[in-house]
Amino acid sequence: MNNFEYSNPTKLVFGKGQISKIGQLMKDKAGEGAEILVVYGGGSVVKNGILADAEKSLTEAGLKFIPFGGVHPNPSIEKVYEGIDIARKNNVKAILAVGGGSVIDTAKAIALGVPYDGDVWDFFLQKATPKTALPVAAVLTIPAAGSEQSIRVVINGNGRKLGIGTPVIRPFVALIDPEYFFTLPQNQIRAGVIDMMSHIMERYFTPTKNTDFVDGQAEAAMRSIMKNGLIVEKDPKNYDAWSQLGLAGSFAHNGYYSLGQVEDWASHGMEHELSAWNDHITHGLGLAVVTPAWLEYVTPKNPERVAQFAVNVMGVKPQETPEKTAEAGIEALRKFYKEMGAPATLKDIGAENVDIHKLAEKAVMIPGKLGNFVPLKAEDIEKIYALMR
Amino acid sequence: MNNFEYSNPTKLVFGKGQISKIGQLMKDKAGEGAEILVVYGGGSVVKNGILADAEKSLTEAGLKFIPFGGVHPNPSIEKVYEGIDIARKNNVKAILAVGGGSVIDTAKAIALGVPYDGDVWDFFLQKATPKTALPVAAVLTIPAAGSEQSIRVVINGNGRKLGIGTPVIRPFVALIDPEYFFTLPQNQIRAGVIDMMSHIMERYFTPTKNTDFVDGQAEAAMRSIMKNGLIVEKDPKNYDAWSQLGLAGSFAHNGYYSLGQVEDWASHGMEHELSAWNDHITHGLGLAVVTPAWLEYVTPKNPERVAQFAVNVMGVKPQETPEKTAEAGIEALRKFYKEMGAPATLKDIGAENVDIHKLAEKAVMIPGKLGNFVPLKAEDIEKIYALMR
Repeated sequence: MNNFEYSNPTKLVFGKGQISKIGQLMKDKAGEGAEILVVYGGGSVVKNGILADAEKSLTEAGLKFIPFGGVHPNPSIEKVYEGIDIARKNNVKAILAVGGGSVIDTAKAIALGVPYDGDVWDFFLQKATPKTALPVAAVLTIPAAGSEQSIRVVINGNGRKLGIGTPVIRPFVALIDPEYFFTLPQNQIRAGVIDMMSHIMERYFTPTKNTDFVDGQAEAAMRSIMKNGLIVEKDPKNYDAWSQLGLAGSFAHNGYYSLGQVEDWASHGMEHELSAWNDHITHGLGLAVVTPAWLEYVTPKNPERVAQFAVNVMGVKPQETPEKTAEAGIEALRKFYKEMGAPATLKDIGAENVDIHKLAEKAVMIPGKLGNFVPLKAEDIEKIYALMR
Repeated sequence: MNNFEYSNPTKLVFGKGQISKIGQLMKDKAGEGAEILVVYGGGSVVKNGILADAEKSLTEAGLKFIPFGGVHPNPSIEKVYEGIDIARKNNVKAILAVGGGSVIDTAKAIALGVPYDGDVWDFFLQKATPKTALPVAAVLTIPAAGSEQSIRVVINGNGRKLGIGTPVIRPFVALIDPEYFFTLPQNQIRAGVIDMMSHIMERYFTPTKNTDFVDGQAEAAMRSIMKNGLIVEKDPKNYDAWSQLGLAGSFAHNGYYSLGQVEDWASHGMEHELSAWNDHITHGLGLAVVTPAWLEYVTPKNPERVAQFAVNVMGVKPQETPEKTAEAGIEALRKFYKEMGAPATLKDIGAENVDIHKLAEKAVMIPGKLGNFVPLKAEDIEKIYALMR
């Protein structure tokens, strides 16, 4: 295990009916009568009344607010610029995101941009390091990205999808009501479950040794995600299963599962290039295509770790060699994705004709390589993309 | 799962050599040139140089400090009063605890008392609710109590050992260097491992239903504690094993393992009466006597939960009935305590002649019953004490 510093001050407000608290929570942070920017996506939070409930609570707490809707999946830097402009003109003191990862990430990027003199895209190009941000709170409507407790933000711009991490944008409140997930479209359920599973895998597959405690935590979390993911896939109004997923998805990405260890992030990097190439590719579904191919490619470099995953997470019986155990584990993971109704190949996500050579070159552009469990060059990544055909 | 709010802002600073950061961390909180009260116990932190290292770092950060040593196990309210007096007279801005649970709890109680007009013991009698406290940081020298990240404080006074929980005393920094544990006396290693295990059990044995995610986290943590506890019992200079225990012990008591669920605390309550009766009884060793007897007594009320513990934590094979599985699990727990070199009966801890009737009456005095997994009256508690003979 490596030395580390860790702090996660996000207040998690969890359970049905908690939305009525959001006004007071925002007031405690932003001050009496402050102006709040309310960021959201399309029509679903309007139709299901979550946005109205949040706004009612803000009004009851004596706050003013500006609704800022229209955030799309794979959120764009243009929308971020628009939000920064509105927030500055209206002297906004804090941002409330009501939505999933794209909405929360847009809110975070706006929060970074408002107090910054330069172009907020500088941060994503790693030309500048964020020093401060407006406070962000998140009302979660899709449990997937884990952005509601995380220091990460991912934005699409100039044909790329780039992510950074900085503690200044960790939300001060994450409000999770499992009932909000009852009406999610089937594809978002699938994508969400696969994404939260991947957030733990990106940490679990580490070059760091002697990680017994965190290993056990991560393995148990992944088992719980798979078990409850399969329940909500069939029974989308199951409060108990959504409660477990709401918790798991949020902790999956807050740093707990990589305490003292190096993270990987190669699968996310490869998927990001796919959904930057075509923003109709849903991130979580793209991950279902990328992850088994990546595991297959890296297994020869560290078969013991993949075998541990196979036994402790996928429930595979140990075979004669770690390689064979690993292989059985990857097969079991593919089976799980299939049971969740997820795609398996580039063709399944409409990307059979993508130029994988160009994609691989882009994936290593910043910072020159991809991943840490097994560091990958462009030529490795191209081979991994080829395995997805 | 129940609705909940949770936030743990403690900054965990983990790994070898981290002590040199403590001065800057204290300065960030207490301000330039502030006066710090440094609370510690007996001679061990003097002999092994940890205290000197901490004080050197404070000096390098330009802070002043007052050493306040002599805290004993099962810390007394008299010592707390003394610390409050010194802190007030010297306009102390923050407290640095260098030690284990007793030292950190003394620091917390002083922190509560300094800004409070009345008698700090009022809080422990639940006559008053704390509203504020001085900031506390903790340099951990014994991984056991989990006080370095917790909202709990336990103090002995007027023949009783009473604990309360309040977020205002959660330390702002917990510094954990696994090398500090290499020279612990064998009995403190044992007691520490058993105590951290118990902190998770007190949460795991809950009346709350549908806790799949947290169950898995708690079960994995307990397995890791047992595995690494047995390693350090034989090899006390094993950095990797102590790293896992340092992490596990700290998370065991920060609230993570009871998110959305009611906690129990009957075993701690019963043990506290034993070590209030004779403060030479080490808390962790007392728990090894109390816990199996408690489990035996409560099994008939909820055999399924004890059986789940038996299978998922103790690695017992399911038997014909949950009761039998539970019984095998309790036997396995007793075996683990024995392997750790812990006592098993009241006689082993020199308490064969204690008046168990009087002890049981005291244990339910506040707030009228003990425990939540199975709520216990004085007559139940007396029967449980009788099982420890």
